[in-house]
Amino acid sequence: MAENQTLTIRFGIIGCAEIARKVSRAIALAPNATVVAVGSRDADKARRFISANGLPEGTRAHGSYEAVLDDESVDAVYLPLPTSLHVRWAVAAAEKGKHILLEKPTAVCVADLDRILGACDANGVQFMDSTMWMHHPRTAKMRELLSDSERFGQLRAINSIFTFSSDPDFLKNDIRVKPDLDSLGALGDLGWYCIRSILWAADYELPKTAVALRGPVLNEAGVLIACGSSFIWEDGKVATFHCSFLTHLTMELCVMGSKGTLHLSDFVVPFEESSAPFTFASNSGFTELVTGWQPLPSKHIVTTELPQEARMVAEFARLVSCIKSSGSKPESSWPAKTRKTQLVLDAVKTSIEKGFEPVEIGS
Amino acid sequence: MAENQTLTIRFGIIGCAEIARKVSRAIALAPNATVVAVGSRDADKARRFISANGLPEGTRAHGSYEAVLDDESVDAVYLPLPTSLHVRWAVAAAEKGKHILLEKPTAVCVADLDRILGACDANGVQFMDSTMWMHHPRTAKMRELLSDSERFGQLRAINSIFTFSSDPDFLKNDIRVKPDLDSLGALGDLGWYCIRSILWAADYELPKTAVALRGPVLNEAGVLIACGSSFIWEDGKVATFHCSFLTHLTMELCVMGSKGTLHLSDFVVPFEESSAPFTFASNSGFTELVTGWQPLPSKHIVTTELPQEARMVAEFARLVSCIKSSGSKPESSWPAKTRKTQLVLDAVKTSIEKGFEPVEIGS
Repeated sequence: MAENQTLTIRFGIIGCAEIARKVSRAIALAPNATVVAVGSRDADKARRFISANGLPEGTRAHGSYEAVLDDESVDAVYLPLPTSLHVRWAVAAAEKGKHILLEKPTAVCVADLDRILGACDANGVQFMDSTMWMHHPRTAKMRELLSDSERFGQLRAINSIFTFSSDPDFLKNDIRVKPDLDSLGALGDLGWYCIRSILWAADYELPKTAVALRGPVLNEAGVLIACGSSFIWEDGKVATFHCSFLTHLTMELCVMGSKGTLHLSDFVVPFEESSAPFTFASNSGFTELVTGWQPLPSKHIVTTELPQEARMVAEFARLVSCIKSSGSKPESSWPAKTRKTQLVLDAVKTSIEKGFEPVEIGS
Repeated sequence: MAENQTLTIRFGIIGCAEIARKVSRAIALAPNATVVAVGSRDADKARRFISANGLPEGTRAHGSYEAVLDDESVDAVYLPLPTSLHVRWAVAAAEKGKHILLEKPTAVCVADLDRILGACDANGVQFMDSTMWMHHPRTAKMRELLSDSERFGQLRAINSIFTFSSDPDFLKNDIRVKPDLDSLGALGDLGWYCIRSILWAADYELPKTAVALRGPVLNEAGVLIACGSSFIWEDGKVATFHCSFLTHLTMELCVMGSKGTLHLSDFVVPFEESSAPFTFASNSGFTELVTGWQPLPSKHIVTTELPQEARMVAEFARLVSCIKSSGSKPESSWPAKTRKTQLVLDAVKTSIEKGFEPVEIGS
C-alpha cells in the first residue's frame, strides 16, 4: 500500500445498516479514505447516523440514495443495503462513475452479480466485496504457509463452519431472513464466508461439484436458517461447510494438506482486534508408541495496527486512487473472487432446491 | 475405580500387532492388571515381543492363539488381530470364559459384532472395545460441559476429522488396507473414532440417517482410503466427518450447541501424554461494532497421571474384577456404545455402496 497514497478517497455510504457503523469507523481509520456523505431514504436518519458515529463535520446527509450518487464529491460508495437491492443500486452507482465497495452476499444470484460487474466494467470503476477477513495480515501469512510444498504439501480437504445463535425475533424479522430482502438467508450471510474460505484455501480453483448436505432448516417464509454443502474437485480434494443462525458463535476453518494442517477458530472476525491466532502443524507424526505428537502444532499470532476492515477500505481506496491518478484499469482479481464465491453459493442453493443432487459448478 | 481393586486381572495378548506394544505398556501401567501370556502363530515371535516390551518375567509365550485361550491363568484377552479375524477369536475367547478387550473396528459388520456380543453375553464375560480416548479424564470433563444446559444449551451440530498421511507402501501393503484383513480401510481405522466422537457428543443418540459424502477414495483392491459422511437426527441436529489415509495428521472435533462450542484438535491421541487441552466458548457474542468476541473462548487443560490407554485397561480390569469377585453381571454400557458405533459405520459403508443414498440407521 505504499504507492499512490496521495489521494484520499471520498466515500458515500448508502443505507444506514448496522454494519455501516463498523465500516464508517473503518473508513475513518484508513489513512487514505474519508466519509463525505451518507444517504438514507430519510435525511434525518442519515443525520443521526453521522452524529452517532462521529463522522467528520461537513459530512453531507442525503434523503435519498440517488442524491449520494449525484454528489460529485463522492468517489466511491459503500453499499450495505439488503441483498435484493444490490443490483439496482450498484448498477446505478457504476453508471454514475462511483467505485463500489459492496456488502456480501453481493447478489441474490450470479446473473444479478454479472449485471453489477458488467456495469462496473463498462464504467471503469473498481469493484470489491466487503469480505473483511481477506485483508487481515493473518490471511496473507496463512497463504504463505499453504503455498509451501514442503510444509503443507498438496491440498486435500477443507472444513469451514460459521454459525451464530439468534433469537426468535431475528429469525422472524431480521432483514437477513426476509425472502424479499435477503432471500439467501444464512447461506448468504454466513455461508458466504465459508464458501470464500474454501475457495481461498483452494487458491480460487472452483470445485467441480457441489452437493448440499441434507437437513437444512428453513423459516416460515422458506428462507434458509441453517444449511451446508460438500464440494468435490477434479483432482479429488474435498470440502464441507456448515452455517446456521441457530447455533452458538463458531468460526472454524481447517485446511488439510498432504504434509500440513492449518486451523483457526475465528476466521471471519478475529477474537481480538489487534492480534489474530492460528495453528499450523507440519509433518507431524506420533511418538514411538503413539502416545503423543511430534512435532507439536505451532501457534502463530499475527498482529495488526489497523483492523481488518480498515485494511480492506485502505486497499480498496488504494486501487481507486490508482485509477483516478493514473487512469489505470480496475483491479480484476477482486471481482473475480466475488464471482466465484457467488457461483458456488448459487450451486449450493440449486442443490438444496433439487433435493441434494450434485450440481456442476460452471464458470 | 476405588472398589474391588484387590484383584489383579491377568491378561493374555493374542497377536503381536504394533498396537499391542502400546496396550501391553498400558496393562503394565494399570494398577490392577498384568500381562501373563502372549500368543502368536509363532512362539518365537511371542517370546521376542515379551522381551522387546519388557513384560514381566514368567510371561508365557504361546505358539498359537488357542493356547492363550486354554491358559487357565488368563482372565482376559486383548485382541489386536486384523478385523476379519475378530469374530472367530472373540467368540472363541468368550466361550472359554475370557473377558475381552477388542481392538477397533470391532467387526466387519454389525452382524459379526452381534455374534461376538452374543457370545460374551452367553458366557457372562465383559466386553469393551479399545477406544482409548473414551477413558481420558478430559473426555469426562468435556461431557460435563456438554451436559450443562446453561453453558452449552442444545446440541446442534458436530464435525469430526481424523486423517493421517501414509506412504505408498502402506496404501498397498498395510493390514488396514487389505480387503481380506481389514475390509473397512480408513473408515474402520479412522472413521471409527470420528463416528464414536459424534455418538459421544450426541450422548449416544443414534442419528436417523447417514448420507455418505461423495468423493471417497479407494485403493486398487477397492478398500476405502478416504471417505466421509453426514448424519441427520430426528430433532434436526446434524454432523459430518471426514477420514483419510492421504492427509496430514489431523484430529478435529467441534461440538456446537445453541449456547456453547467445544473444540479440540487432538481428540484421539492427545498431543502430550500427561495433559490434554480443549477450548470451550459459552454464550459468546461480538463486541459492539463486531470487532471482536466477548467473552473469549476459554482454554482448559486436563492432566492425567495414567495415560488414557492405561485408564482404559484399569476400567476394564475393574469391571472384570467386579464380575470375578462378586459374581456381578458384565457392564452393558460399553458393548452398547460399540454396537452403535458399528451400526453407524455400517450405514456409512452402505450409503457409499448405494451411490451416496441416505441410509436409515436401525437399531
